[in-house]
Amino acid sequence: MLLNEARAGRLLDDAGLDGLIGATQVNVFYLTGIWTKYENVALVARDRLTRPALAAPLHAVDFMLQALPGVGPVVTFGTFYREEGPGPLSEAEQAILRWSKERETVASQFDAVAALLVELGLAEARVGYDEKGLEPEQVAELAHRFPKLRLVPAFQLFRDIRMIKTPAEVDRLVGAVRVTEQAIDRAAHAAYEGMTEGEMSVIFETTQIQLGATPNMGHVGFGHSGMLGMINRPDDRLRRGDMIRFDAGCFYRGYASDLARTYSFGEPDEKLRRYYGASLAGEQAAIDFIRPGVTASQVFEHCIGAVRQSGIPHYKRHHVGHGIGIALAGYDRPLLGPNDHTPLEPGMVMEVETPYYEYGWGGIQVEDTVLVTESGCQILTSLSRELGVLG
Amino acid sequence: MLLNEARAGRLLDDAGLDGLIGATQVNVFYLTGIWTKYENVALVARDRLTRPALAAPLHAVDFMLQALPGVGPVVTFGTFYREEGPGPLSEAEQAILRWSKERETVASQFDAVAALLVELGLAEARVGYDEKGLEPEQVAELAHRFPKLRLVPAFQLFRDIRMIKTPAEVDRLVGAVRVTEQAIDRAAHAAYEGMTEGEMSVIFETTQIQLGATPNMGHVGFGHSGMLGMINRPDDRLRRGDMIRFDAGCFYRGYASDLARTYSFGEPDEKLRRYYGASLAGEQAAIDFIRPGVTASQVFEHCIGAVRQSGIPHYKRHHVGHGIGIALAGYDRPLLGPNDHTPLEPGMVMEVETPYYEYGWGGIQVEDTVLVTESGCQILTSLSRELGVLG
Repeated sequence: MLLNEARAGRLLDDAGLDGLIGATQVNVFYLTGIWTKYENVALVARDRLTRPALAAPLHAVDFMLQALPGVGPVVTFGTFYREEGPGPLSEAEQAILRWSKERETVASQFDAVAALLVELGLAEARVGYDEKGLEPEQVAELAHRFPKLRLVPAFQLFRDIRMIKTPAEVDRLVGAVRVTEQAIDRAAHAAYEGMTEGEMSVIFETTQIQLGATPNMGHVGFGHSGMLGMINRPDDRLRRGDMIRFDAGCFYRGYASDLARTYSFGEPDEKLRRYYGASLAGEQAAIDFIRPGVTASQVFEHCIGAVRQSGIPHYKRHHVGHGIGIALAGYDRPLLGPNDHTPLEPGMVMEVETPYYEYGWGGIQVEDTVLVTESGCQILTSLSRELGVLG
Repeated sequence: MLLNEARAGRLLDDAGLDGLIGATQVNVFYLTGIWTKYENVALVARDRLTRPALAAPLHAVDFMLQALPGVGPVVTFGTFYREEGPGPLSEAEQAILRWSKERETVASQFDAVAALLVELGLAEARVGYDEKGLEPEQVAELAHRFPKLRLVPAFQLFRDIRMIKTPAEVDRLVGAVRVTEQAIDRAAHAAYEGMTEGEMSVIFETTQIQLGATPNMGHVGFGHSGMLGMINRPDDRLRRGDMIRFDAGCFYRGYASDLARTYSFGEPDEKLRRYYGASLAGEQAAIDFIRPGVTASQVFEHCIGAVRQSGIPHYKRHHVGHGIGIALAGYDRPLLGPNDHTPLEPGMVMEVETPYYEYGWGGIQVEDTVLVTESGCQILTSLSRELGVLG
């Protein structure tokens, strides 16, 4: 189960909601474990949060094979043809046939959602809905069909629930971290003079694929190009004395990673050592400071101060980290920035990062993933955080 | 230039619009050539369609390095720090510095869009906007700020413009096709008895990465699993006599590919030969039938009839192809289905496909990309379309 049932129940009660409709890829996955771009909608009643009902397009009912235990009932919609034949069926085929036929397939996603609202006893209830996934016209049509239904935008409520991870989510996040750190390590250690950035990126990405993940964000910057930001410059060639900045991640079993490491190709000069040392000291100070009850903005202030005291006195930054969770969801809450006063809680999984960019010089960054625990935090990354020296 | 300037001008005139705002990743890219998930907004005036103005987050101004010639003015927004230092600047760094500093950075995306509407003379005009990219609150705020501005939803208008490709777009689409057909060919020919589907998928995806593309859709199905749909079953093992179905694509320079091929591992039996032959005959009939002036639904009817006459008399399908274009845009228009009566036009790039799925047997598919020409169509794929026999 990915959903944080206790937290979801409490936040639904606080908001006076009797159920939730997930309609974005992220929230459908969160409720059901089904990861697909096709337009599924998942519905849960407050008192049966572990029994998500699903509206699924008939052509994509095969993705139900990913469903976590407990998903159902399922109403399919739309048109798709799979012919029945004389051959014996595999277990997967039997499941597809069952999901496709146990209910009559309805014409549209709207019809499927309407049928499930009735079946779940939510047709006259207050229901939070995922306004980034349901079209405004569909919401209006639901209101028209069910005059006593109260639909309340709940995209932010979903984000609030997702802020505190369950053990199953932490497990997947650790998996995503492991893939990306192995890929960074392998790509960095393939460095040779004259190698193109594109060649190193290919090693990084193919390693992630070989480890069962999907490449997502893959910034690799050589020398000055590390200061540009997140764009890649595939034709850049590695030269002795270059720094190499990775800010990169993957999608793994539905979850994202986002890690950064910095290497020197050849012996680093004094400035790179000092600046990287300051960046790492700031990151470590933030990690040491993280515990339940301190606010995101307090972590930010503490971290910025530590970088400044440790060797980059002019250091400025708009945030020093953020929550991380389901792939494609962007940053999870909270943001370790000056204006986010959310108190940290056990179960948050946070990125901590202290990048520094300088024109005419380059970009350095260290970024790690930590799990907030009862007494502090636990680093989920295992790759050395020191400035790596290659070549 | 990706934008079809002549078509855009005509459709804007037909709709009585003085300009367009692109705010989704797809439409920002279409107007500017900049491919990034970060929240850029591009604005064009009717009489300067080749001069898109850009609102760009300061942290992602580096993606401007991808911009097609003519993009500007640029207004940056938000907070990000790149320090100035004593070192000499590369050309890319000089460009970033110029874009970052030639205008004052404004607080928000809204402020940047508002400033550009004024600068382009569109603040009291009728402007089409990309309603899937701009938040409703922003649209309301723009209406409040500019009482004489008329904002008209134009997501569909963008789709209509994008339906007819420019030569630059066809070039990128051909690139995407080449990558995917090489990857299918390499992965299929790596087949051995007992190979897992996951192993073949890794070869398919890593090949696409090595060829400069990003894996997108990557269905590989062995035996019966090909009938399930688009889900992968990485633990399936290849057995002699299995069919192998690829329905797969990539993203390449912003454009998508979507191809299908079917192989037999070992000599195909009579049913597979006959059914694949019917599928291919139907695809070929559709390709032969495609020319300007015939409608999408006529192609559909002709194709279905041809499959039925050629060996699958009970063949049913909800569509036999669709337009293809910019990555992440989903299907482009038109749909080669029974209810789409759009006449085909030169410059459309279409997928043609005749998949067949049968419980207890498997799934077969051939899918190719064609460019509608003045007199018919041109197949953009080069990989053999015959049933491939492996092992």
